[in-house]
Amino acid sequence: MTHKPLVLLVAAAGLLATAPSPSPAQPAGKPPAAPADPKAKTIADVVTANHILAELGVVDGFGHVSIRDPNDPNKFYLARSMAPELVTSADVLEHDLDGNSTAPASTKLYLERFIHAEIYRARPDVNAIVHCHAPSLIPFAATGIPLKPLYHMSSFLGPGVPVFEIHKAANGATDMLVKTPELGKALAKTLGAHPAALMRGHGAVIVGRDVQAAVFRSVYTEMNARLQSQAMALGAKVIYLDADEAKKSEETNSALVGRSWELWLRKVRDK
Amino acid sequence: MTHKPLVLLVAAAGLLATAPSPSPAQPAGKPPAAPADPKAKTIADVVTANHILAELGVVDGFGHVSIRDPNDPNKFYLARSMAPELVTSADVLEHDLDGNSTAPASTKLYLERFIHAEIYRARPDVNAIVHCHAPSLIPFAATGIPLKPLYHMSSFLGPGVPVFEIHKAANGATDMLVKTPELGKALAKTLGAHPAALMRGHGAVIVGRDVQAAVFRSVYTEMNARLQSQAMALGAKVIYLDADEAKKSEETNSALVGRSWELWLRKVRDK
Amino acid sequence: MTHKPLVLLVAAAGLLATAPSPSPAQPAGKPPAAPADPKAKTIADVVTANHILAELGVVDGFGHVSIRDPNDPNKFYLARSMAPELVTSADVLEHDLDGNSTAPASTKLYLERFIHAEIYRARPDVNAIVHCHAPSLIPFAATGIPLKPLYHMSSFLGPGVPVFEIHKAANGATDMLVKTPELGKALAKTLGAHPAALMRGHGAVIVGRDVQAAVFRSVYTEMNARLQSQAMALGAKVIYLDADEAKKSEETNSALVGRSWELWLRKVRDK
Amino acid sequence: MTHKPLVLLVAAAGLLATAPSPSPAQPAGKPPAAPADPKAKTIADVVTANHILAELGVVDGFGHVSIRDPNDPNKFYLARSMAPELVTSADVLEHDLDGNSTAPASTKLYLERFIHAEIYRARPDVNAIVHCHAPSLIPFAATGIPLKPLYHMSSFLGPGVPVFEIHKAANGATDMLVKTPELGKALAKTLGAHPAALMRGHGAVIVGRDVQAAVFRSVYTEMNARLQSQAMALGAKVIYLDADEAKKSEETNSALVGRSWELWLRKVRDK
Repeated sequence: MTHKPLVLLVAAAGLLATAPSPSPAQPAGKPPAAPADPKAKTIADVVTANHILAELGVVDGFGHVSIRDPNDPNKFYLARSMAPELVTSADVLEHDLDGNSTAPASTKLYLERFIHAEIYRARPDVNAIVHCHAPSLIPFAATGIPLKPLYHMSSFLGPGVPVFEIHKAANGATDMLVKTPELGKALAKTLGAHPAALMRGHGAVIVGRDVQAAVFRSVYTEMNARLQSQAMALGAKVIYLDADEAKKSEETNSALVGRSWELWLRKVRDK
Repeated sequence: MTHKPLVLLVAAAGLLATAPSPSPAQPAGKPPAAPADPKAKTIADVVTANHILAELGVVDGFGHVSIRDPNDPNKFYLARSMAPELVTSADVLEHDLDGNSTAPASTKLYLERFIHAEIYRARPDVNAIVHCHAPSLIPFAATGIPLKPLYHMSSFLGPGVPVFEIHKAANGATDMLVKTPELGKALAKTLGAHPAALMRGHGAVIVGRDVQAAVFRSVYTEMNARLQSQAMALGAKVIYLDADEAKKSEETNSALVGRSWELWLRKVRDK
Repeated sequence: MTHKPLVLLVAAAGLLATAPSPSPAQPAGKPPAAPADPKAKTIADVVTANHILAELGVVDGFGHVSIRDPNDPNKFYLARSMAPELVTSADVLEHDLDGNSTAPASTKLYLERFIHAEIYRARPDVNAIVHCHAPSLIPFAATGIPLKPLYHMSSFLGPGVPVFEIHKAANGATDMLVKTPELGKALAKTLGAHPAALMRGHGAVIVGRDVQAAVFRSVYTEMNARLQSQAMALGAKVIYLDADEAKKSEETNSALVGRSWELWLRKVRDK
Repeated sequence: MTHKPLVLLVAAAGLLATAPSPSPAQPAGKPPAAPADPKAKTIADVVTANHILAELGVVDGFGHVSIRDPNDPNKFYLARSMAPELVTSADVLEHDLDGNSTAPASTKLYLERFIHAEIYRARPDVNAIVHCHAPSLIPFAATGIPLKPLYHMSSFLGPGVPVFEIHKAANGATDMLVKTPELGKALAKTLGAHPAALMRGHGAVIVGRDVQAAVFRSVYTEMNARLQSQAMALGAKVIYLDADEAKKSEETNSALVGRSWELWLRKVRDK
């Protein structure tokens, strides 16, 4: 599949989410024209990403996903505080890197929007961020056992996955949430140049160059954790991808991310 | 069961739109007015809670959930003896703290209604109770390994989860059911001021200040057990939330319980 | 719930399976009159039991369930050789205790119908039999670790679950199938008076006084195996129901089997 | 995708009724005549196999299945590069044993089509091939613990499942993909006469005499891995089928493969 139709499909998803009477019988592959407005497309992608992550069990009533504003690197789009599966385009708000939103003051924002703000500030290469409590990641976050890629779909984990210890970052007990700019900066520092970081007693943050990559990585980080714990339980030495293999595989896979996105988009659209 | 009663019940719960053609784009959080009658609302909530717990696998053909009567602390609402997923408003009966119901004598009541009656008697702070056989809890109940919170969603478990040993309470072998006021009192005593108690060879009881909290806690007690056993299997030291973290986290989370309820309500309404 | 409505519902399921234009909008709880013919009711129950076991994952493309003819203890009803989920009333055939069927010679019968025939011959108390390859049972069948009840829903396992070793019964290697009267007799001998027997390298057979009991026991034998392996993995001593508890619990539970059946019937009817 | 093409494809597969209003009571096993054109039937089977493997979780966005051209043993049918669940007949392309396709040059082909080409070249007995990343197989591929049949449904694994080490085959680090004829030949050499081979850090390849056998084997290889790891975790000696049992069982089972196919076909058709 070429890149162009994929973009069109994504745009179509955004339109479906907002059109008053979407036709379920409309043939896939013949989406309506993409919205000219990059803002509308970005908001549609935030909605789709939320629905995909919920459909695949990466998020439940909690967790969130954001996309950097393509027109202004100091802004990003994130839903208001609500369950990912219920997000619609009307719920997606522009935030700045201080965590402020242009929404009315009565709008409840995610307490942890600083995760997004501070990672966007620290990582110019990152244009989409997922925060989740994916079940299989919690045991690794609680034990500190390093996540490592045991198959090529998760080769992006080759550089390693650091664990954020909020107790140390805050120099004391917290409510576990990254709800200040300072904690956001500390998390971004732990993340460094890595693709993901676990958060002890909490969950994980996963980043990507675009929303398709961030969602893909979230799904396969969760999968790798599940399979790694199963492999460890077999009681024999686990052979992980070595650094060269991980690097080469990630280079190849980065061109295939759209294939998964197309599938998952279809799943949430057809629900 | 036709779909109509369910729609009406959801409407009675006062949380979502009841218009014949609800618009998916309607912002969540702007529900129509709740029914004026607190009794009708409570019964609707009992129905919804039963359906949510079944949808999420916390209960199967067995298990039950009750809500204390908002008008009379010595009464509570509980379904007649039946599978949770099939409960409708017509099945929800008022019970008193001796386990009596105003229903005709031919109505079959839950054998274990004394779980609810005696905990309401002992715990004025509790207004909703779930009894379940959630699969992941059974192994902990059978081994006595303490459930402890390994992530913030289950921080309410910080005070610990005692295990009720019915053989000791009854001073001999029973059919494992808490089907007398005396056994109910013994279970309430084991529960003490805790958020939940496991029942050896049987299941668990989970309590909350309201039905949303009791359902939320049931879901995340089940999840914590699953993740704790996975973390223990990794073979390294598991770091649990410390007492301060659990307390602070629970204070924050208690304001977020409605977000999950809204999601789960939508799931059972849309089935 | 009283016993009568349940019977009516079961009958209704049979009618639904055969009526040319079943109305999905027909209110539950108001089933049409049960068929006067016990044979029609038994065949309808065989169909329903097949569908329930498939819905709950106890059987996949393989496995079967039979019911003894209420009019002739030397006959039983069993589908022709096919996937349980696809069985309709037209596929259910009368078999005798030698494994013969009245169907045309071209009809393909289950190779293992002798499991049913010989257990009905040996166990006058048994009126329904399930043979399955439920996944969680295979590891126990392969290791010989005894299945024991760790919670009250599986208290019927109290008398123990023997393991059938076909290599020993046949005095040599077989294709693992119980496809002769001799192997059927050997399996019935291993089963003895127990509620179930595992079959090494193969699966299990579970019996009941009626079809509701046999299905209930199949579901909770599978569940117990899953939970027992999880409890064993926790690394502490597992406390199982003692003999008295199991006996008392089974006496109580046997009156509650209909509650599960009603739920499962609704699930397969509403699909 | 509209539903119509799927219905037509199923009809082309020649296994089920194609009347506009199929009667659920129609006995299975009496399909209408298969399409006269073997090419159309083969393409329809490729589509169905892709959908079944996705439905059963053997493949996700990645993985593929091919069928050898019944008219020309040097050709095979395989989809263009896309997610299996989305494949339609228009996406299925003829490939030759050098991995060339007759499709326009702009069509993106699977990078790993050489898996299929080289196995068809090396194994005249093989007429269908599945490549997948089924989750339960990854831990075995990463540890090298031998997959062995612990129940009769996977008796075809009796001859053993070798593990392909691409690092050794390529004499260095790769991107883990079998994307050259040379790597395809090396994989075919590792596979030898076996029914399947695991691929370290990647997944597996499973072969069959026809597409029904290849799909059946894929499903039960995945299942066996899951059950074998569970059995190993129980901590007792696992008894596997011995060589004679595996051989006899496989002979019997090979005649029953169609029963599963019929069930799975119905599942993907009814979605």
